[in-house]
Amino acid sequence: MQGNNIIAAISTPAGVGGIAIIRLSGEGCIRLAGSVFKPYGNKMLGEQKANTIHFGSIMKDDTVLDEVLISLFKAPHSFTGEDVVEISCHGSVYIQQNILQLLISKGARLAQPGEFTQRAFLNGKMDLSQAESVADLIASSSAAAHRLAMNQMRGGFSNKLIELRTELLNFASLIELELDFSEEDVEFANRERLKEAAYDIELHISKLAESFEVGNAVKNGIPVAIIGETNAGKSTLLNLLLHEEKAIVSDIHGTTRDVIEDTINIQGLAFRLIDTAGIRDTTDEIESLGIERTFKKIEQANIILWITDVGTTDEHIRDLAEKILPAVKNQKLILVFNKVDMISAERKENKERLLREEIPDRIFISAKYEQGTNDLESLLVKAADIPEIGEQDVIVTNMRHYAALENALSAIRRVGEGLDLHLSGDFLSQDIRECMHYLGEITGQISTDDILGNIFSKFCIGK
Amino acid sequence: MQGNNIIAAISTPAGVGGIAIIRLSGEGCIRLAGSVFKPYGNKMLGEQKANTIHFGSIMKDDTVLDEVLISLFKAPHSFTGEDVVEISCHGSVYIQQNILQLLISKGARLAQPGEFTQRAFLNGKMDLSQAESVADLIASSSAAAHRLAMNQMRGGFSNKLIELRTELLNFASLIELELDFSEEDVEFANRERLKEAAYDIELHISKLAESFEVGNAVKNGIPVAIIGETNAGKSTLLNLLLHEEKAIVSDIHGTTRDVIEDTINIQGLAFRLIDTAGIRDTTDEIESLGIERTFKKIEQANIILWITDVGTTDEHIRDLAEKILPAVKNQKLILVFNKVDMISAERKENKERLLREEIPDRIFISAKYEQGTNDLESLLVKAADIPEIGEQDVIVTNMRHYAALENALSAIRRVGEGLDLHLSGDFLSQDIRECMHYLGEITGQISTDDILGNIFSKFCIGK
Repeated sequence: MQGNNIIAAISTPAGVGGIAIIRLSGEGCIRLAGSVFKPYGNKMLGEQKANTIHFGSIMKDDTVLDEVLISLFKAPHSFTGEDVVEISCHGSVYIQQNILQLLISKGARLAQPGEFTQRAFLNGKMDLSQAESVADLIASSSAAAHRLAMNQMRGGFSNKLIELRTELLNFASLIELELDFSEEDVEFANRERLKEAAYDIELHISKLAESFEVGNAVKNGIPVAIIGETNAGKSTLLNLLLHEEKAIVSDIHGTTRDVIEDTINIQGLAFRLIDTAGIRDTTDEIESLGIERTFKKIEQANIILWITDVGTTDEHIRDLAEKILPAVKNQKLILVFNKVDMISAERKENKERLLREEIPDRIFISAKYEQGTNDLESLLVKAADIPEIGEQDVIVTNMRHYAALENALSAIRRVGEGLDLHLSGDFLSQDIRECMHYLGEITGQISTDDILGNIFSKFCIGK
Repeated sequence: MQGNNIIAAISTPAGVGGIAIIRLSGEGCIRLAGSVFKPYGNKMLGEQKANTIHFGSIMKDDTVLDEVLISLFKAPHSFTGEDVVEISCHGSVYIQQNILQLLISKGARLAQPGEFTQRAFLNGKMDLSQAESVADLIASSSAAAHRLAMNQMRGGFSNKLIELRTELLNFASLIELELDFSEEDVEFANRERLKEAAYDIELHISKLAESFEVGNAVKNGIPVAIIGETNAGKSTLLNLLLHEEKAIVSDIHGTTRDVIEDTINIQGLAFRLIDTAGIRDTTDEIESLGIERTFKKIEQANIILWITDVGTTDEHIRDLAEKILPAVKNQKLILVFNKVDMISAERKENKERLLREEIPDRIFISAKYEQGTNDLESLLVKAADIPEIGEQDVIVTNMRHYAALENALSAIRRVGEGLDLHLSGDFLSQDIRECMHYLGEITGQISTDDILGNIFSKFCIGK
């Protein structure tokens, strides 16, 4: 426990705005706020009811620092589960900082990142995976990421884990009961039914672990590498998708030196676009290095947009394909013919047939004239292959949870193997307990200060 | 009137934070918010009392957009004087924008900049000068500017103007009474007492108008030009005062090309620092242009910091002084000897005496070793010569108010002259009414849509 002291922080985004919120939490925080607040009504702050709002002045000695609204929340009916005060002040940086300083001079201390949410967890208002989803929710910038975080915050994942732990507990109890009667050689638990149960649990955990691939892509954006010869229009395409001027576009070959990453939102999904240096002729040693780097980027991507100029000869495209195709493994490859405005329908038909078998997904665009970009966006969404996520779906988005699930999976698999090998109950029991331990780490039923510190340090201050 | 429709805006600073506030105002806004809010308690939003807070979900069709707190305010007891709803949501940009869009789809419209405050004015919650101070309060970044805005928001200026208008009204009544009885040639108003009254009012208005010089300096920062030869350490000094690396510092003569403006806060006062291109030898035509520009900057400044290298010969300093001194008029000139670490006590004493009479304010510093900067800061505050501002002091900070005061001053002066010339009552009355008109423009007793539009368009959205 961090102790019962009073924490304070500016909870609204940094900077100037119409209003800002300064938040206090902890026993005595209403009295503390009352000591600098002069209400315009008759009652003092300490006499007011929970969930009410009060107008008055924040006084620094005898001067008015600001006219504010104060919202009162009382333990345990607050976000943190403690008494909470929210001061809604004018959104000048000067006022925000001076009120915060005043509160600190009266005995509050500056909250650490995520400390409000950490207290909510420690006071049993939410479990650890829910607390983590608060940060995800705030960071989410696409509809899909938002929905995953919201599902998690509302306890979807936790309920699933509680279910699994209950099953494991029943399982363990049966086996441990046998141990108590081990001298009598009874078998309370039917081995076949135990095997079924272990397999069932393994299936559930493995489904959760597998959902991480989708969850991670949704949360962090689906990585899309844009590759192609120099001057095929990679940067123009990137800008078009980004709707802004980020990469420098020029007619000089090899303009793009650095890899530019940016995120776009298409139909509620986030795509992380990775520009790469252009592929040029490979006799040059330095250029080969560039290509190597490009291939590294391919490895990290889920989708590859290979952009080529429609004017490029079939032969050259086949040459490039020989280099590119071996590097493409699980990724979706989309061949993008740029500058479609420059060619005849006949030549376009010819390009339609080129490498049809090797690269079935292809699209013709004109980045310059903004033709075909809508189709390209649809093709990206299709290639992302993210299933429709319902309100009830449990999808793992958190690396920590994924790691814990992988550990839980190993443990439950050992149980299954142990049953096959007719191992004695105490071995089995140990693995079941280990599986439970890892699931408990996710919800925070099992937690250490290190784990907590690591999780909450990634939050913003004031939440 | 903008109509009774419901306005909505994000009122907290732009960006990601722990929490954000979306504000609604207007008749029916509680019903509108209620239509997308699913309370966790039993009562619907519309049944709840004023000044209370409610926990629940914002629903977009059947999905939860966010879990929020809703604060209710009811007309006329709210900031705008109308029903007001504040939705405190998680501070993700995605959530903020989606809740706002949802409210708009339900019939709210996006608030224009300052429209909440404009409604507060139109509904008689504050006068125009108070409304304007809200924007000043939010923009204020120093203790002094904050205090001025706060005094104005709390009605100090308005009270003073109401006082003056009352006096003017009495004055006008007396004179107009005479007009009604003009055929009988009575003089209800003692001319000597009228003269006294006119002079008294003139004095008050002129004091207010004069306070604008201080008010403007406090509000916008006191302009300080940093001038000197190239390589004397202008940029280093600037960085030292700014506590950051803004100007490029190098040993090459004439590094600073562009004028850099930045604001520092010293003892609660804001200083606007203006770096200038270095003064070099004047045979070069382009260089002369640079010096001309420097002299323009001197004109715009209240304080001039002339920084010179202690190694510079007395003769050269005298040469420069011949150019600089004629350009200095009402400004305070401070001679800053830099690199004091490089010279002996004896040579320092010599520099102490140099041009003593022409430039009495001088200071020795070492920008490199950060010596003497505290003294320099004190000297700047002294040179700013801003009087201590008490809570009751009325200081004009607004250009619009200043212009209105100047017009009111001309009018009341004409009244005084008219009395001296024994002009008839109807002439006097007209000028008194004009004086009242201009004072009324400040508080908004007299206002047009143009004036209002102009004032509130400078606000941020959401306030």
